[in-house]
Amino acid sequence: MITPDFRKKMADSWFSYLQSQICKEFEYLEKNKVKFSKREWSKNKKNEGGGTSFLLSNGKIFDKVGVNKSTVSGTFPKQFRSKILGAEKKGKYWASGVSVVAHMRNPKMPAIHFNTRFIVTSKEWFGGGIDATQSFKDSKEKKIIHDDLKKVCVQNKKNYKKYKNWCDDYFYLPHRGETRGIGGIFFDYETKDWIKNFKFVRELGYSFINISKKIINKKRNFKWTKRDKEKQLLKRGRYVEFNLLFDRGTKFGLNSGGNIDSILMSLPPVAKWK
Amino acid sequence: MITPDFRKKMADSWFSYLQSQICKEFEYLEKNKVKFSKREWSKNKKNEGGGTSFLLSNGKIFDKVGVNKSTVSGTFPKQFRSKILGAEKKGKYWASGVSVVAHMRNPKMPAIHFNTRFIVTSKEWFGGGIDATQSFKDSKEKKIIHDDLKKVCVQNKKNYKKYKNWCDDYFYLPHRGETRGIGGIFFDYETKDWIKNFKFVRELGYSFINISKKIINKKRNFKWTKRDKEKQLLKRGRYVEFNLLFDRGTKFGLNSGGNIDSILMSLPPVAKWK
Repeated sequence: MITPDFRKKMADSWFSYLQSQICKEFEYLEKNKVKFSKREWSKNKKNEGGGTSFLLSNGKIFDKVGVNKSTVSGTFPKQFRSKILGAEKKGKYWASGVSVVAHMRNPKMPAIHFNTRFIVTSKEWFGGGIDATQSFKDSKEKKIIHDDLKKVCVQNKKNYKKYKNWCDDYFYLPHRGETRGIGGIFFDYETKDWIKNFKFVRELGYSFINISKKIINKKRNFKWTKRDKEKQLLKRGRYVEFNLLFDRGTKFGLNSGGNIDSILMSLPPVAKWK
Repeated sequence: MITPDFRKKMADSWFSYLQSQICKEFEYLEKNKVKFSKREWSKNKKNEGGGTSFLLSNGKIFDKVGVNKSTVSGTFPKQFRSKILGAEKKGKYWASGVSVVAHMRNPKMPAIHFNTRFIVTSKEWFGGGIDATQSFKDSKEKKIIHDDLKKVCVQNKKNYKKYKNWCDDYFYLPHRGETRGIGGIFFDYETKDWIKNFKFVRELGYSFINISKKIINKKRNFKWTKRDKEKQLLKRGRYVEFNLLFDRGTKFGLNSGGNIDSILMSLPPVAKWK
């Protein structure tokens, strides 16, 4: 029988498995010459969970890529409860998820962000998304990403267009009047039909691996100049602005006693401002 | 007679004058080989003011230093009003101030921040402060800075200890459990005795110039390595975190229709995260 506890366990083990798969594939992209380093953390001594962070730096492909998985529980601070579905009254939560941010060495490659999560309060739901940030316009690449994401949505009877627009709305920098990147999909509050949603989330995980491999292999031999790198570093400045000023994941992490290095692993290794 | 309008005009011209003095002295520190570039902006077409930003980049002393002055007025968005003294009801404000952030080339020199402002709502008051962020511990330098700040406070019968503690409390990164730098002074809501407060604010401006010259000239020939620079760039990452996650000046700017490049001039030219 699919009990709430069973759902938590299944989600938790899927995220662990996916994390290991992503790390394996990314090390393979690095021709196994650079390896992830592993760090484990616990939230506190009250048995409220923790996480495992894998970080790879200074690769031929990745300047910095973090692949984090965490499973935590607890009670939200009062002033934060109204912001989380089903946590308004008691503030209790359980959450598990995997989160990836890849900052590329080659400025012609986009930064890629991926996250999927299962959250349980008095409600329970899946959420997540994939999005890319180019420093150089490349509409072919954009099409590849969006086509693949559309496919996995359609296969799972998910509303691609809604998710796409949600992504554009979410990754927007109002103070700059610009989007963070070229979008992708973003979804949340998928509360109905756990089995189908869980399948969608799993397929999206595989889709993320495929998309990453496709766009990296396509561009791994692309030439770039110091000037191209400068442009990428300025774009990364915007990435930092978004993540510190607006990102809900950052706020969730800071409000759920998350590990600070894991929360901020999304920040690029280097960023510039004019 | 000292009318409200006279107070505004006096404060506004002082800040303009101070801005020009700071730029002149900083260019002199650069032996006049690198110059500030000037940019002017207007808030909107409704005659609600604007500002002048001076930026110097890639100097021998300064990696990047911004010296901004702005004088703006308007009405705060409703959800922000409760955060500003005297703006709770109608949200009207007038504000003028000068703000400096200096990121040094030599990692042995601290980053220095200075700001003074005169704000008028249904109340009116001065605020401001000076603080420094070292990448390398130097307790002699810290003493020089604090001694000078104490002097200008004592001369003006201001409570140095209160201002010092206020600064430590304000420039604190709770998620890191660390202070941004080595402190300085921070003050706000100085509503009483305009003449005396204005004198204090003027003397603090001169004091900022003197402190900057002292610590820069002391260290201008200090040797440093690539490794020292790395350490500085990581420290700057923390600087970015503070300014985007917590700084009230950033929030004030974003909520009063300020110019985005001027608000974010405080961000370093380059920052790193591990």
